[in-house]
Amino acid sequence: MRILIGQIEVTPCHPQVNLSRVLDGVKKAGKKRADLAVFPELCISGYIIGDMWEREAFIRECEKCTNDIVEATRSLCPGTTVVFGNVVPDWNKINEDGRVRKYNAAVVARNGKILKVIVKTLQPNYREFDEARHFYDARKLALEKSVENDYSYESANYLFDVDRAVVELKDESPFAILLCEDCWDNDYFIKPIGVFDFYDGVELIVNISCSPFTYGKTSKRNRLFSRQAEEHNKNILYVNCVGAQNNGKTLYTFDGDSRLYDRCGNSVAYYNRFEEGVSVFEVGLSHNSCKPCVDDSVDTLYKSLVYGTAKFLEQTDIERIVIGASGGIDSCLASCLYAQALKTVYGDYKDRLWLVNMPSRLNSKTTKRIAKDLALGLGCQYVVVPIHDSVTSTIGDLLKVGMKLPEFDLQNVQARDRSSRLLAAISASVCGAFTCNGNKSEITVGYVTLWADLAGCFANLADLWKTQVYQVARHINLTSEEHGMHIPEEAFHICPSAELSESQNVDKGQGDTLDYEQYHDFLFSSWIERWNRVTPEELLNWYLDGSIEKELGCKVYERFLSAKEFIEDLEFWWNKFDGLAVSKRVVAPCILAVTRRAYGFDMRESQGKPYYSEAYLRTKKRILG
Amino acid sequence: MRILIGQIEVTPCHPQVNLSRVLDGVKKAGKKRADLAVFPELCISGYIIGDMWEREAFIRECEKCTNDIVEATRSLCPGTTVVFGNVVPDWNKINEDGRVRKYNAAVVARNGKILKVIVKTLQPNYREFDEARHFYDARKLALEKSVENDYSYESANYLFDVDRAVVELKDESPFAILLCEDCWDNDYFIKPIGVFDFYDGVELIVNISCSPFTYGKTSKRNRLFSRQAEEHNKNILYVNCVGAQNNGKTLYTFDGDSRLYDRCGNSVAYYNRFEEGVSVFEVGLSHNSCKPCVDDSVDTLYKSLVYGTAKFLEQTDIERIVIGASGGIDSCLASCLYAQALKTVYGDYKDRLWLVNMPSRLNSKTTKRIAKDLALGLGCQYVVVPIHDSVTSTIGDLLKVGMKLPEFDLQNVQARDRSSRLLAAISASVCGAFTCNGNKSEITVGYVTLWADLAGCFANLADLWKTQVYQVARHINLTSEEHGMHIPEEAFHICPSAELSESQNVDKGQGDTLDYEQYHDFLFSSWIERWNRVTPEELLNWYLDGSIEKELGCKVYERFLSAKEFIEDLEFWWNKFDGLAVSKRVVAPCILAVTRRAYGFDMRESQGKPYYSEAYLRTKKRILG
Repeated sequence: MRILIGQIEVTPCHPQVNLSRVLDGVKKAGKKRADLAVFPELCISGYIIGDMWEREAFIRECEKCTNDIVEATRSLCPGTTVVFGNVVPDWNKINEDGRVRKYNAAVVARNGKILKVIVKTLQPNYREFDEARHFYDARKLALEKSVENDYSYESANYLFDVDRAVVELKDESPFAILLCEDCWDNDYFIKPIGVFDFYDGVELIVNISCSPFTYGKTSKRNRLFSRQAEEHNKNILYVNCVGAQNNGKTLYTFDGDSRLYDRCGNSVAYYNRFEEGVSVFEVGLSHNSCKPCVDDSVDTLYKSLVYGTAKFLEQTDIERIVIGASGGIDSCLASCLYAQALKTVYGDYKDRLWLVNMPSRLNSKTTKRIAKDLALGLGCQYVVVPIHDSVTSTIGDLLKVGMKLPEFDLQNVQARDRSSRLLAAISASVCGAFTCNGNKSEITVGYVTLWADLAGCFANLADLWKTQVYQVARHINLTSEEHGMHIPEEAFHICPSAELSESQNVDKGQGDTLDYEQYHDFLFSSWIERWNRVTPEELLNWYLDGSIEKELGCKVYERFLSAKEFIEDLEFWWNKFDGLAVSKRVVAPCILAVTRRAYGFDMRESQGKPYYSEAYLRTKKRILG
Repeated sequence: MRILIGQIEVTPCHPQVNLSRVLDGVKKAGKKRADLAVFPELCISGYIIGDMWEREAFIRECEKCTNDIVEATRSLCPGTTVVFGNVVPDWNKINEDGRVRKYNAAVVARNGKILKVIVKTLQPNYREFDEARHFYDARKLALEKSVENDYSYESANYLFDVDRAVVELKDESPFAILLCEDCWDNDYFIKPIGVFDFYDGVELIVNISCSPFTYGKTSKRNRLFSRQAEEHNKNILYVNCVGAQNNGKTLYTFDGDSRLYDRCGNSVAYYNRFEEGVSVFEVGLSHNSCKPCVDDSVDTLYKSLVYGTAKFLEQTDIERIVIGASGGIDSCLASCLYAQALKTVYGDYKDRLWLVNMPSRLNSKTTKRIAKDLALGLGCQYVVVPIHDSVTSTIGDLLKVGMKLPEFDLQNVQARDRSSRLLAAISASVCGAFTCNGNKSEITVGYVTLWADLAGCFANLADLWKTQVYQVARHINLTSEEHGMHIPEEAFHICPSAELSESQNVDKGQGDTLDYEQYHDFLFSSWIERWNRVTPEELLNWYLDGSIEKELGCKVYERFLSAKEFIEDLEFWWNKFDGLAVSKRVVAPCILAVTRRAYGFDMRESQGKPYYSEAYLRTKKRILG
């Protein structure tokens, strides 16, 4: 069977761009006489595009693209069955939001005619997914049809109508079509793939997807599809897109990784991840060679960071990047990622990347040296602009009106002077944008200053724990032969420090009060990335029953002298995380998502006072008296 | 029939606080020997609380509150039937997100026992509502039960099980219970209220709600419930909460407005809007006096702004407010709203409100005088801090490293100097927070500077069109006897201006290039607030077919000499709105929602290049050649 696997890039909200990619594929399918050509879910509109679905002009344009593709199958690839995902409106019906009815559907076309339109049955409504907000699913359709038929429910079988999703092929056995989540059926009472168990003719199930990358998801996805193929004794062709899509607050990359799984659950990948691929393959459905899937590595993480950063620059037309280079590991890593991203998009980065060191009297020679060495190594633009005078004059301006700043707030004055005064002006001057280099550990507890290091056009480290920042930075140095970048070794050995007060002296080993790699990253992760998110209640219980080290995956007891000390540290950070830090995240720039739980539009939050359950307060009282 | 109508305030994410409010109500119901006591939907947990639902400790605590209330009905109000909304978990089942199954339910209890648990059937998934994300609805429950029964569908009737939602009362006719959206059934194929048509005994339907205020919704809500009462020939008791809840980006107020509708659709309101009320009323179901509902007025809008601002301060523990007072109408209005809000929360505002005027050499005497008069009139704190020297030294710092700022960017340097340098430091110095005074017209096209006038702790004008800013400001002056505040008359007569360049001289009548009140507010509103959001495609078509003035509600043709001019203005603002302004909104602070479409979590957006449909581009080409 000859299949064109269309792992195309999808540019969100720009149907014409995507249409021409699909038409190129259709043309190729015709030339190579493919039996079947498959393109991803929602590959004309994009998927994570906010409320763009509320614009009828956009829906009409997407609909017209469907017609264009169907028409093209007549002339460009006669005989080839083409499957692609698109929004399918029904202008005679209303959605539950009162707008035009929209289906997230697979369209099947051949010889200028639509053969089938298959509506998605299972809709994800967790993390960054808002599918029920925009699309009508096959379940609602089933119930609706029942109700229309005098509550008889006879047509509720629509849900399980095998013929609806099966397409006959000339000289080949029929194949069936499902959309993305339809195969991720673990938490649903309906298992759409199950209906084909009783349909012997179907040897192949095509799953079209628009499935964002998150670090570690690859192995989960492969386990899932492998299991489904084996359990249901079918070949599964999984076709996913590449590119990046965002919902304002959070940007997602799509890694493609389109694969054919055989009936034993073995799979073949057809293209490199994060790369387009539109080729015709001779696919044997009886067996395919077993190539075990490789789990995500730090290299995947690095690639996704560069890819997402590059796509963001491309999609927002940012051509020059300004980075506040403090000499810390975060800005070192950010500099390398932007250098690579600028190179990807514009061919070169040396005149497009500006590193700016802005020392006060508190910055050590060590960190100033690291920043300079980094810039020299990268060969990019580099300037030094001291902030002492400006900070002094701000203090003076306040004194003139009788106001005095406490020590802590003086730190923030420095931080804001750097970003909002200098970086913003410098980026305007070079016609570029400056970056936010905060990492996930900092963003979690608000260890960033508002309108300062939290400012910037894009936060590409904000979904990486500090531990991961070190891992990716280390990976860059280990692979520097590939890309020519190197982070000064000293950056790995100084203690993390904001250098905003005398007590944050890196040369004396004084810095952040967080012990990222040994404890706090593990603790914070439990608040966010565990599917059932942990609160002080569970943590205190685990501390008391001896299970906390196993639960968190790190040493705990040797760190604290007593439950009292454990509680003090816990509440100190929890108060920040669940209090003021929420309002900081509200004004954070777009975050590049790489983990299974990113801030912004994935993990949605409410501002208010920190939450302690009554059970926690009771337990605490019992212990501390 | 004696009913306690529990229009309580709901404090989001703090079950114990809400529990004690319900228990106070239960106690009162017992004392006054009420037959029935009704409290709002999700009145223990709150409703718009982000992903708080993912914390099992929170769910367990809410569940325990249900038990506490049920237990209290035994001792505190024997014989009274108590209805309240809460999240009801089923720990043995999973939700479709893989977490514990959760129902948005009404719990009915009497004499220490739960009589019924009624699950919501219709779930809103538009605007700020994410209900399918967290809750399992009665429709899924129905389908699930069918599937479990070998696909027989017999139990799908669960959906329409009248007995499930009807509660018998001693000496009174039974009543039925629905939850909020269950009555807003216009866009759904299922009409839950319809099932009671065939159940003669039911004279009263209780609708418990958690329904946010938006300007103009009152009349819509009243029309809807009035129609439902009349069509179905039932009394409807609508019970809503007060308070404010937010999902980080957007804060919603709840106006209560609990009402009884008789079978003719007439209604009685029991409490003032935006005020708690927990009293027992003797309610006659055969007829009630007809008091026509009053539509929302500017006074309602004003009250909702003060209420929402006060609740935000209360919930985030902000005790002092710093406002950049430019002399423009926006900061004048903001000052009055915060003065009132601070007074509401803390009893007085004069030592808690700081107005800061930060003139450059471009600011006119006129606006400086307005700012001063405003502060004198309010009797609050007032300081003047010029920015000329600081701006000059920033320009100098850049020159030293060979960088020059274009004229336009010099404007932004001034704006950032004011907010990020001065207001941030001043608010730290007085232990307060500074505000973002941007209005919806500005936020729409990004007519605000990043890390400058877009910065701040809260944006309480960002959902008001400039036209509405004037209306509310005018209302304050018209009612100044009530609250003692007055905005200097001059502020209404100067042209709106940022005063950031020589060409924005208010004394010469030079200012913003937007004609807010005559055209642009109408245009912008069509992009956002029309349910099917308008794009340049529709606008150009309307311009050409002569319907645009009717569609927008303002003069258009006399404004532009030609289609070309119309298109130029349209594309100029659309490019901003659908381009860079999106990234500005991403970093905007929490917005107080008052209209039917607020930025943030209501209207969700994606960053990228502005969207023009292919049809628009074709039409444009046809006209312009």
